[in-house]
Amino acid sequence: MSSKTNQQWGGRFSEATDAFVARFTASVEFDRRLYRQDIQGSIAHARMLAKVGVLSEAERDDIIRGLSEIRMEIERGEFTWSVELEDVHMNIEAALTQKIGITGKKLHTGRSRNDQVATDIRLYLRDETDLVLQEITRLQQGLLDLAEREADTIMPGFTHLQTAQPVTFGHHLLAWFEMLSRDYERFVDCRKRINVMPLGAAALAGTTYPIDRFYTAELLNFSQPAGNSLDAVSDRDFAIEFCAASSLLLMHMTRMAEELILWTSAQFNFINLPDRFCTGSSIMPQKKNPDVPELVRGKSGRVFGHLMALLTLMKSQPLAYNKDNQEDKEPLFDTVDTVQGCLRAFADMIPALEARKPVMREAALRGFSTATDLADYLVRKGVAFRDAHEIVGLSVAYGIQSGQDLGEMSLDELRQFSDVIEADVAEVLTLEGSVAARDHIGGTAPNQVRAAVQRGRDALLIREH
Amino acid sequence: MSSKTNQQWGGRFSEATDAFVARFTASVEFDRRLYRQDIQGSIAHARMLAKVGVLSEAERDDIIRGLSEIRMEIERGEFTWSVELEDVHMNIEAALTQKIGITGKKLHTGRSRNDQVATDIRLYLRDETDLVLQEITRLQQGLLDLAEREADTIMPGFTHLQTAQPVTFGHHLLAWFEMLSRDYERFVDCRKRINVMPLGAAALAGTTYPIDRFYTAELLNFSQPAGNSLDAVSDRDFAIEFCAASSLLLMHMTRMAEELILWTSAQFNFINLPDRFCTGSSIMPQKKNPDVPELVRGKSGRVFGHLMALLTLMKSQPLAYNKDNQEDKEPLFDTVDTVQGCLRAFADMIPALEARKPVMREAALRGFSTATDLADYLVRKGVAFRDAHEIVGLSVAYGIQSGQDLGEMSLDELRQFSDVIEADVAEVLTLEGSVAARDHIGGTAPNQVRAAVQRGRDALLIREH
Amino acid sequence: MSSKTNQQWGGRFSEATDAFVARFTASVEFDRRLYRQDIQGSIAHARMLAKVGVLSEAERDDIIRGLSEIRMEIERGEFTWSVELEDVHMNIEAALTQKIGITGKKLHTGRSRNDQVATDIRLYLRDETDLVLQEITRLQQGLLDLAEREADTIMPGFTHLQTAQPVTFGHHLLAWFEMLSRDYERFVDCRKRINVMPLGAAALAGTTYPIDRFYTAELLNFSQPAGNSLDAVSDRDFAIEFCAASSLLLMHMTRMAEELILWTSAQFNFINLPDRFCTGSSIMPQKKNPDVPELVRGKSGRVFGHLMALLTLMKSQPLAYNKDNQEDKEPLFDTVDTVQGCLRAFADMIPALEARKPVMREAALRGFSTATDLADYLVRKGVAFRDAHEIVGLSVAYGIQSGQDLGEMSLDELRQFSDVIEADVAEVLTLEGSVAARDHIGGTAPNQVRAAVQRGRDALLIREH
Amino acid sequence: MSSKTNQQWGGRFSEATDAFVARFTASVEFDRRLYRQDIQGSIAHARMLAKVGVLSEAERDDIIRGLSEIRMEIERGEFTWSVELEDVHMNIEAALTQKIGITGKKLHTGRSRNDQVATDIRLYLRDETDLVLQEITRLQQGLLDLAEREADTIMPGFTHLQTAQPVTFGHHLLAWFEMLSRDYERFVDCRKRINVMPLGAAALAGTTYPIDRFYTAELLNFSQPAGNSLDAVSDRDFAIEFCAASSLLLMHMTRMAEELILWTSAQFNFINLPDRFCTGSSIMPQKKNPDVPELVRGKSGRVFGHLMALLTLMKSQPLAYNKDNQEDKEPLFDTVDTVQGCLRAFADMIPALEARKPVMREAALRGFSTATDLADYLVRKGVAFRDAHEIVGLSVAYGIQSGQDLGEMSLDELRQFSDVIEADVAEVLTLEGSVAARDHIGGTAPNQVRAAVQRGRDALLIREH
Repeated sequence: MSSKTNQQWGGRFSEATDAFVARFTASVEFDRRLYRQDIQGSIAHARMLAKVGVLSEAERDDIIRGLSEIRMEIERGEFTWSVELEDVHMNIEAALTQKIGITGKKLHTGRSRNDQVATDIRLYLRDETDLVLQEITRLQQGLLDLAEREADTIMPGFTHLQTAQPVTFGHHLLAWFEMLSRDYERFVDCRKRINVMPLGAAALAGTTYPIDRFYTAELLNFSQPAGNSLDAVSDRDFAIEFCAASSLLLMHMTRMAEELILWTSAQFNFINLPDRFCTGSSIMPQKKNPDVPELVRGKSGRVFGHLMALLTLMKSQPLAYNKDNQEDKEPLFDTVDTVQGCLRAFADMIPALEARKPVMREAALRGFSTATDLADYLVRKGVAFRDAHEIVGLSVAYGIQSGQDLGEMSLDELRQFSDVIEADVAEVLTLEGSVAARDHIGGTAPNQVRAAVQRGRDALLIREH
Repeated sequence: MSSKTNQQWGGRFSEATDAFVARFTASVEFDRRLYRQDIQGSIAHARMLAKVGVLSEAERDDIIRGLSEIRMEIERGEFTWSVELEDVHMNIEAALTQKIGITGKKLHTGRSRNDQVATDIRLYLRDETDLVLQEITRLQQGLLDLAEREADTIMPGFTHLQTAQPVTFGHHLLAWFEMLSRDYERFVDCRKRINVMPLGAAALAGTTYPIDRFYTAELLNFSQPAGNSLDAVSDRDFAIEFCAASSLLLMHMTRMAEELILWTSAQFNFINLPDRFCTGSSIMPQKKNPDVPELVRGKSGRVFGHLMALLTLMKSQPLAYNKDNQEDKEPLFDTVDTVQGCLRAFADMIPALEARKPVMREAALRGFSTATDLADYLVRKGVAFRDAHEIVGLSVAYGIQSGQDLGEMSLDELRQFSDVIEADVAEVLTLEGSVAARDHIGGTAPNQVRAAVQRGRDALLIREH
Repeated sequence: MSSKTNQQWGGRFSEATDAFVARFTASVEFDRRLYRQDIQGSIAHARMLAKVGVLSEAERDDIIRGLSEIRMEIERGEFTWSVELEDVHMNIEAALTQKIGITGKKLHTGRSRNDQVATDIRLYLRDETDLVLQEITRLQQGLLDLAEREADTIMPGFTHLQTAQPVTFGHHLLAWFEMLSRDYERFVDCRKRINVMPLGAAALAGTTYPIDRFYTAELLNFSQPAGNSLDAVSDRDFAIEFCAASSLLLMHMTRMAEELILWTSAQFNFINLPDRFCTGSSIMPQKKNPDVPELVRGKSGRVFGHLMALLTLMKSQPLAYNKDNQEDKEPLFDTVDTVQGCLRAFADMIPALEARKPVMREAALRGFSTATDLADYLVRKGVAFRDAHEIVGLSVAYGIQSGQDLGEMSLDELRQFSDVIEADVAEVLTLEGSVAARDHIGGTAPNQVRAAVQRGRDALLIREH
Repeated sequence: MSSKTNQQWGGRFSEATDAFVARFTASVEFDRRLYRQDIQGSIAHARMLAKVGVLSEAERDDIIRGLSEIRMEIERGEFTWSVELEDVHMNIEAALTQKIGITGKKLHTGRSRNDQVATDIRLYLRDETDLVLQEITRLQQGLLDLAEREADTIMPGFTHLQTAQPVTFGHHLLAWFEMLSRDYERFVDCRKRINVMPLGAAALAGTTYPIDRFYTAELLNFSQPAGNSLDAVSDRDFAIEFCAASSLLLMHMTRMAEELILWTSAQFNFINLPDRFCTGSSIMPQKKNPDVPELVRGKSGRVFGHLMALLTLMKSQPLAYNKDNQEDKEPLFDTVDTVQGCLRAFADMIPALEARKPVMREAALRGFSTATDLADYLVRKGVAFRDAHEIVGLSVAYGIQSGQDLGEMSLDELRQFSDVIEADVAEVLTLEGSVAARDHIGGTAPNQVRAAVQRGRDALLIREH
C-alpha cells in the first residue's frame, strides 16, 4: 500500500509517505489553478531578493526566465503535473530546478509555502473580484436600460404575493438594481482586505534574511505588507468575506430568479424569456422551461454551503498555519466560478426579456390594487386614516361579492360606504393616477423611475473612471 | 456567442440554445459518474417494458446488448461525452440509437429524465452507503483491537481540557467506538429511505403505458416503488439525510482528530504517529506534522457545507421537478468521496499509532486527578459529599502552593484538612486504584474496557452476517 | 464590577466570580425548562442509591418528598430561581438541602452535573419527540381526508412551474403525505438514539460507588445505559440528529407553504384559506395575507440555523465534557418549539382549505397539459417516441400561434402534423382521460389516489397501536 | 379554539383570527425590544408630516408628547403589552390613540408597518453596531497593553500545533489584534449600509402624501433615504451582513479561546487566568475550568447559525414584503447580544491573564525550534537552501535519538552533519538570537513588536476622533 514518494521534508523522516496518504493530502489537482499567481509571486520575490543582495542579478534573471518558460509550458498544456510533488508550489519549483539547476533551489530563500500560498490566493482572488465587479456592472447596466424602457409599464405590486398596489415595471427592475449596488459595494470593501500581502511572513515568524516587503508589495500591486507574520499565514478572512458577499449576491439572484420563474408561469404570464435561455422536456413536447433562473436559484445552495464550510474550517484553529487550511481552496474556487457564471447568465438574459404589458396591466386592474388610493382619498376628504381603512375594507368585501374591482363600481355603489366620495374619485382609482401620485424619491411614479435611472447611470459612470 | 446545439426538445423551439447557456445548464461533466447506474436502470426498464409487451423480446435484447457495449466503452475510456447532449442520460441514449437504430428511441417509453435521474442517484448512493458502512466497521475493528491492547494504560481524563480523573486509554478509544456505532446505525437507517424506486413516476404523474413497477423494483433490488409520482421525482431527502449522517460522522472525526493533534504536540506527547501518515515542512527541517488528522478536521467544513447547500436547494421549491435539483449531485458526490477518504485514512492510521505509556502515566499523576477519589473516600468515612468537596478543594489549594500532588503529600499534611483521613487513603490515591474502582458498565476500569471490547466484537459480528 | 457569588466549587478558589462572568456563564434562564426532567432523574437516582445501600430508605423518602414539593412549587410559580446558583440543577439541589437538610447534599453522590444534564435533556427530548410524532400524524390524517375528498379534482401538474400534465388535487396532497411519512420515520429512528441513559457516567469516568445503572434506566424507561462514560457526557448527537430531522421536516413545510402561497395568489387562485388563518394590512384595506404559510416558510431558517449551530458547537471538541456544551440547549429548545408550532398551525389549517375546482380545471385546460398524452397516442399508433415528441412539439407551436390548446383544435388541424391521428384522439385529449390513464401504483388516476389513501390509513393505524 | 381578537385590518374580514394563530403570528414578545426606535422614528415622522402640512403643529405636539409619555411608561415597566395587538407598532399606536384620541390615528398617514419596522431595525442596529465598535476597540486596547508588556517574552511558535520557531508572546497577541482590526473595519463598512432610511417607502410603492424623506432622514441621522421603495421594505441585507461580520469576529474569538484553553491546560501551562473568570466542578474539587473561553468558543455556533438562518429566510422571496421577514429579528437580536457579551468577557479577561514566562521559555527550548535558524546559517555559509534543509533534518533526527535539542549539542556533534558549522553557530541557536533576527515589518523581533504596538495605538487614536 505504501510507496516511496518524493519527500520535500528531508532528513528527519525514516519512512515514506503512504501512497493513499500522499494522494489524500496532495492539493495539486485543484491548486494548480493558481500557477499564474504562483509564478507572478515568485518573480516578484526573486526581484526583491536580488535588490537586497540575497540573489545575484544573474540568478534573478535565470529564475525569471525559467519561470516564464514554465508558465508558457503550462498554458500550452505541455507541463506534467505530479501528485507526488504535492502542490502547485513544489511542482513549479521542481521544474525550475530541473531547468536552471541549483539556482532554482535558492528561490525559496526567505519564504515558506505558508506565506507563498496565502499570497497566491490573494492575487488570484483580487483578479477574480475585479471580474465579478465588472459583471455586476454589466448586469446593472442592462437593468437600467430595461427600467428606462419600462418606466411607464404598469404591473401589480405584491406583498405576501397578494396584489397590493400598482407599480411600474421599471420601478420593480430598479429594486433589483439597488440590491446589486449593495453587492458591488461589498465586493469593493472586501477587495481592500484581500489586497494585503502575506509574503515575508515565511513559515510563521518572519525570516532572518534582510527582505524588503514594501518593495515586493509594490511589485505585486498590494496596498501594504501584512502587519503580523503569525496572522498573515493563518488569516483566511478574505475568502470567508468573499463567500459572504457572494452569498448575499446569490440570495438576491434567487429573488430575481423566483420572480422570473413566477412571471413565466402560465398563471402570471407577465414576461417571455427568449428560447435560447430555456430548455424543453424529454417527454413533454410543449414545455419551455426557465432553466437559467431555476439553476441560478439552485446555485445559491452551494454558495451558502461554501460560506459555512469556510467558517467551520477556521473555527477553533490555533495559530499559526494548520493543514486544515488547505481546504480553503475548493470552496473558494467554486464560489468564484458560480458567481461569475450566474452573473453572466443573468447579464445576458435579463435585457432580452420581453414584458407582456397588456397582461401586466390587466392583472393590476384586478385585486383591488387601488384600495390604498381610495383610503388616501378619504383621508384627504377629512376622514381619519383608520376609519378610511375600515370604509375601504367594506367596499372591497362588497366588490368580492359582486365580482367588481373598485374602479368598476358606480359612484352610487361607492357612496354606500361613505358619502364624502364624489365624482373626482374616478381619477384616483385609475392605475395611471395611482402610480403617478407616488411621486417622491424612491416612489414608483414614472418620473421617479426616470430620475432613478439617471442616478444609476451616474453611479456606474464613476465606477468606470 | 450563440451556436446551434442538439436540441432534445423538438418542434416547439424556434431558436437554438445560447452556447454559454448550454454549458451553464449542462450536467454531463459531473453526472457521467452515474453511467453505471444509468445503464443498470435502463436495462431493468427495458426488461420490464418487454414483460408488459411494450417492447418485443428482440428489441429488449438489442437494447441490453447496446447498453452493455456502451458501458464497456465508457470503462475502457473510449466513449466520447458531449456537452451538447447535456447529461449522462442523453449521451447514453444517443449512443444507443446510433448503435442499434430506431429501437434505441423506444427505450425512453414510459419514463422521463425526472424519474430516471432520481433512480440513478439512489442506485449510486445505495452502493456508496454500503462502502461507507464497511469502512466504518473497519475503523471500529481497529479501535477494538487497540482498545484491548491499551485496556490497562492509564492517562489523564480531561474535562474542560483540565485534568479531571485518571482513565484508561482503552476506555478513551472506546468512546470513539461508541460514536461510530451511532454513525453506523444512522447510515443503515438512511439506507432504508434511499432504497425506494422512483422509476415509473415518469415526468411527474405516472405514465399511460401498462408498466409493472414492482417487477422493475425487484430487478433493481429496491424494497418498493415510491408511492406517489409527484413526490418521487421531487424528493431529495435521501441525499440530505446522507449528508446529515455524514456531518455527524465528520463531526466525530474532528473530535478524534483534535485529540490526535493535541496528543502529538510536544506539550502532550502522548502518542506517536508513524511517519508515513505525516508530512514535513519546506522550511523547518525538524517538523513532523500530523497532516492526516488536520486535513480530516478541515474536511468537516465541506461536509457541513454540503448539508446546508442541499437544505437551501430544496427550500421553497414547489412540486414537482425543478431544474434547481440538478444542483443535488456535486455536493452529494463530494460528500461521498470525502467520507470514504476520511474513513480510509483513519482506518489505516489509527491502529498504527503508538501510545507513549510513561508520558501518559506521568501526566495522570499530575493535576490532582485523584481528587474525586479522595472526596469519595471522605464520603465513605461519613463526610457529606458537599463538605468532602470543600475539604479536598483546600488540600488541592495547599498542593498547588507546595508543589505536590495529592499522592505526594504525607498523611500528616492530608490530615490538616480532615482528621478522618487515615493510612488507607494511600491506595485510593493511586492511579490503578482510581481506575479500577470505576467498575460498572460504562466505567473506565480495565475489566469494563475488556467487557466493552467483547460487546463491540459481538456487535460487529452480527453486522457481517 | 465584581461581587461575591455563591460558589459551588469550594475551597480551591481564592476569588469570587466576576459578576458579569457569573451572568454570562449561567444557564438557569433557559435550562430551568428542564426542571421536571431534572427532578424525575433525581428521584430515580435516589431510588437506585437506596437500592444499592448508599442512601437509607428514610433518606430516599426525604429526597423524593422534597423534590416533589419543589416541583409543585415550580409549577405553581412559587419557586425563586437564582442566577447565582448558575443552573437548574444547583437551584433545585440548593432548595432541596434547604428543605430537608444535610440529606439533600447526599443526592449528588455518584453522579455529576455532566451526566445529570445529559440525562435531563434526553428525557426532555424523548417527551417532545413523542409530541412531534403525534402532530405529524394529525397533519397526515388531515391530508388523507382532504385527498380522499379531492381524489377526482383535476388541476394542472407543474414541473419548472410550467404546466406539465393534468393531475388530481388528491394526488398532489398525497405527495405531501409521503414527505411527512419519511419525517415520521426519521423521528422514530432518532428517538431510539435519544433513549439511552448517560446517568452513571458521573463527571467522565464513572463512579466508585456501587451504582446499578440498569435499575436506573428501567425506572426512567431508557432502553439501556450508555456504554462508555466519556462518550456519555460528551455526546450531543441526539440533539443534532433531532435538528436534522426537523430541518428536513421544515424543508418539506416550506414546499407546502410555497404552494399554498402561490395558490392563494390572484394569479393562481386555486384555493381559499379561511380568514382565521390570515391577517390583513395596516395600510391596504383589501389585503388578506397567507401569514401562516409565510411564517412557516420563514421559520425554516431558524431550524436550519440551529442545526448548523450545533454542528459548529461540537466541531473539534476534545473529550469529555467542555463548557461549550452548555450552548446545546437554546437551539434545541427553539427547534422543538418551532417544529411543534408549525405542525400545529398546518394541522389546523390545511383541512380547512377550500379548493376552487373550476379554477383548477380551467388552468389544467390551458398550457397544453395533454401534450404527453398525444405523444403517447402517436406511439401507440406506431410512431417512435422521439418522432412523436417532434410532431407534438409542432402542434404546440401551432397552438401558441393560433391561440388554441390541443383539445380545442379540429381533427383536420391536428392531422396537419401527422396523418395517423384519427377521431379517437378526442378522448385522449380530455383531462379526465389523461388522469385516468395513469393508473398504476404511484400514478395520479383517481383510483390510485383512493388506493393510496387506504394504504395511508392502514399505516397510521399501525402507529396508534 | 378560536376567540375574537382585535383586528387591525378592518372591514374585509368575516372571521376572527384563530387564537393559536394570533399567538403564532404575533411578534410583540420579541419586537418590543424596538420600542425606543419605534418611538424615535414616529416622532421624526410626525415632525415631517407637520412640516409638509399633513399634520397641524398642535397635532404634531400631541403626538410627540403622547409618545414620550409612552416611552417613559415602558421604561418604568408600567406599560401593558398585548399579544392581541400583534407587534410593537400596534401596541404603541393603540396606546397613543387611547392617550391623545383621534390624532393618534393620523400618525400612520403616509407610512406602513413595512417601512416602519425596517426603519426601527436599522436604527436599533446602528446603535448596537456602535457599541460593538467600542467593545472591539476596548479589547484591542487591552491587547496592545499586554503585547507591549510581553514584547520580549519568548514562547514556542506553532504550526500544525508542532513547535516551529520561537516567537515573542507580544507578537502572538498582536496577531489577535490584527484579526480584530479587520473585524472593526467590517463593522464600519456594514454600518454604512445600515444607515439608509426606508421610511417613506410605505407598504411597497411610496405614498401619495407630499412627504419629505430627506427631512426625516436628517432628523434620524440617516445618511440618505433608500432609493427604491420596493427594495426598501424587503431589504434585510444589513442584518445578514451584520451576522456575517459577527461570524468572522466569533470565528476569531474561537481561535483565541482555543489557545487560551490550550495554554491553561496542565500540559501547556503557559498562562494563568484569574479565578474570577473561571468556574469549578460540582464533583471534582481540584478543577479550575476556563469557562469563559470555552463558552465563547461554543457561542460561535449560534452566530454562524443565525447567519445561515437569515440567508435561508431571504432565499427565493419574491418582492416586496412577505411575512417571512418577521423572522429576521430574533436571530439578529441574539447575534447582537452574543457579540457584545463575548467581547465584554474577553475585554475584561484578557488584560488580566498572567504569562508563565519560564514555562513558555522552557517549551521554546524544546522541539528544535531553532532548526530554521541553523538552516539559514548554513545558507549564509554558502549551502543551497534545499541542501541546508537536509543537513538540519539529519541533525534533528540525531537529536531525537540522543535526547538533545540543537542548542544542547556540542560543536563536534553538529559538525558531523556539515563542516561549514563553526563556533559562531551558538548565537544563532539561542532563542534571543532567533527572535531578534526576524527584524522586518511583521516579524517577531521585540523591536518589531514595539513598533507594531505603536502603529496600533496610532490607529486606535484616529478612531476616537
